[in-house]
Amino acid sequence: MSGEHEHFIDKVDLEARRRAAKVIYEKFAPVIKDVLAGRPPKLVIPKRTLANTVFDPERGILVLGEEMLEREFLDLGESRRFMQTLLMAAIIYQSLIENEYPTIRDLYYKGKHTIVYRDLRGRRQEENTWDEQKESDAVIQDVEVFTGLFREDMLILSKEKGKVVGNMRIRSGNDVIDLSKLGHGAYAIESTADLIEFIDVDAEFVLVVEKDAVFQQLHRAGFWRKYRAILVTGSGQPDRATRRFVRRLHDEYNLPVYVITDSDPYGWYIYFVYKVGSINLSYESERLATPKARFLGVQMSDVFGYGSKKPYLSDSERKKFIIKATDRDVKRAKELLKNYPWIYKNPLWKREIEIFLKKKAKLEIEAIASKGIKFFAFKYIPEKIETGDWIQ
Amino acid sequence: MSGEHEHFIDKVDLEARRRAAKVIYEKFAPVIKDVLAGRPPKLVIPKRTLANTVFDPERGILVLGEEMLEREFLDLGESRRFMQTLLMAAIIYQSLIENEYPTIRDLYYKGKHTIVYRDLRGRRQEENTWDEQKESDAVIQDVEVFTGLFREDMLILSKEKGKVVGNMRIRSGNDVIDLSKLGHGAYAIESTADLIEFIDVDAEFVLVVEKDAVFQQLHRAGFWRKYRAILVTGSGQPDRATRRFVRRLHDEYNLPVYVITDSDPYGWYIYFVYKVGSINLSYESERLATPKARFLGVQMSDVFGYGSKKPYLSDSERKKFIIKATDRDVKRAKELLKNYPWIYKNPLWKREIEIFLKKKAKLEIEAIASKGIKFFAFKYIPEKIETGDWIQ
Repeated sequence: MSGEHEHFIDKVDLEARRRAAKVIYEKFAPVIKDVLAGRPPKLVIPKRTLANTVFDPERGILVLGEEMLEREFLDLGESRRFMQTLLMAAIIYQSLIENEYPTIRDLYYKGKHTIVYRDLRGRRQEENTWDEQKESDAVIQDVEVFTGLFREDMLILSKEKGKVVGNMRIRSGNDVIDLSKLGHGAYAIESTADLIEFIDVDAEFVLVVEKDAVFQQLHRAGFWRKYRAILVTGSGQPDRATRRFVRRLHDEYNLPVYVITDSDPYGWYIYFVYKVGSINLSYESERLATPKARFLGVQMSDVFGYGSKKPYLSDSERKKFIIKATDRDVKRAKELLKNYPWIYKNPLWKREIEIFLKKKAKLEIEAIASKGIKFFAFKYIPEKIETGDWIQ
Repeated sequence: MSGEHEHFIDKVDLEARRRAAKVIYEKFAPVIKDVLAGRPPKLVIPKRTLANTVFDPERGILVLGEEMLEREFLDLGESRRFMQTLLMAAIIYQSLIENEYPTIRDLYYKGKHTIVYRDLRGRRQEENTWDEQKESDAVIQDVEVFTGLFREDMLILSKEKGKVVGNMRIRSGNDVIDLSKLGHGAYAIESTADLIEFIDVDAEFVLVVEKDAVFQQLHRAGFWRKYRAILVTGSGQPDRATRRFVRRLHDEYNLPVYVITDSDPYGWYIYFVYKVGSINLSYESERLATPKARFLGVQMSDVFGYGSKKPYLSDSERKKFIIKATDRDVKRAKELLKNYPWIYKNPLWKREIEIFLKKKAKLEIEAIASKGIKFFAFKYIPEKIETGDWIQ
């Protein structure tokens, strides 16, 4: 934007743009130098393969390993991807300096075109820069790992669904927002969670609930006021901004993070995404994962009891609420138990999954919540936090 | 909640509870009287069938017709549904007076149990109150049309995904929120949109965008500041609260409402949900639909031009951006053109769909947005509003 629109640009974004543009420039400058000097240009990029995804037990997160790949322009098998990477970097750079806010879908469209050329025999050939968004998305990820910048650092936006309320004030753009003064509504977290400045946070812990409607119930019932919590939801599978927001609360204010999901493999997976990161995008974990996040529930032992622990449900409630696990649930649970060291090395997780596999039963948060908000908000959650009844 | 939690209850909710409980009490009291007097009890409920769903051309919305059904307890074919309706009303009533905030999923769980009885031959029989949530949801709808209360009026919550920013202040619960001071984030609209009080609104129009990421782009670029708009997204298919929020802005401040969706049958459908309501739940329309909502784009004539109107896309952009319509798209478009009077009686809609059927091409908002935010936010949208280039 220029001229008449200039007064709308906010400083925070402008500074972020400058930082990102500088990094992109510096990272790609050697490629340009190679070309100008007549040397065959190449990019050295960390490998984003499953084989190069390792679990760092020290930090408790999934990270990229040490393996690098060399992407050479003059290698027939790599020149296409080499050119895609440079094309994408150029589009992103241009968007940065022109004050654009592209989405990943926009970047796909912006770069999509057909290159017409003649081959060695003089025949006319056509080649698309990319065909599907899957392809351009992977190129964006290459640019991320090559530059060390997240797409959010490059002012690339995406659909967001994270919400938060609690006793804290933040600065976003030019505004100060009091997240304890939002009535029945909530603050929808921006894509660029690193551009949020935490001004003050007056809380004992962070409570992340999987489901938006449960978030609303706890909010309306005054849970966060009574227990001095920051209440967050990612509305199902969390997006990057929600994860980053939670992680920053943990890091910067040393707040414990409790997560409540459905009691089934899908719910557990959502918890693990908060905790260790997603397996496909392990390079994100260093900034997005909260390794010390605690799985508060719903636990299988809340449902069935275990040892001296009494279940929260009576026999008749259990009969009413539990849902039979599907074959797919059982298969996923077995995979979790087999493949992930942070699960099979943790006796509490082993126990959780073994009860599940034995009972072949799952339970939704709503089943607990339907016992009444008095029970859910003012007994179940605080009692479990107080007695340390969580899994890490 | 009682005792120690009482200070968290907000007055707005409490008054809403009292209003709703009173209506439920009064509507169901005659049934109790019938029972006490030994008369066979019955409920007279507006029919929620497709045959009783009519388009009111005066008001431009779908509404329930005049047909009523009598649901009698002593009719074998109806006693199950009769009892379900009373069970649900009782659960909702109890939730209201106990300060609960149930979701529709909670209500399913709360009411789900097995009734054991002996039949005439003395055999033990079992009958579930309901088996699937689909069944209990339909009963909630019966309670809604019978009482004239929306579920939101009864403090029943549901997943919400609507967001808003703009020059307006609202009161929600005990707080006043300035929707122009939310930084890069947005205000997540509460489920109970009727409990929001609009304090002041300083805007020329409402712009509703289908997609969350596009909403963020326009927000970050300062669109709503420059053009004095209230910017809203429902993140795809809008929920009830978002629709109610938009409708109230239209009614109470006489603001024109413009909608931007993808240029395809699914996008048109989203626009029609804002405009006339959804066909399955026509009883909602009276409060949720905004019959005068205007479809700003993306129009087929924006893409291909029409008559003297020049397209916004060059030939090469069009080639790059348009997506081939699927057979399913074509089928849906033909259905729209055939079945809905507010479409086939409107020459502009006829034209829109006919271009689509001729070109068999669709286009996403992002294709327009990828031409740059300068173009999208500061040329395309304002120019179309200024020249009246919309369809109603």
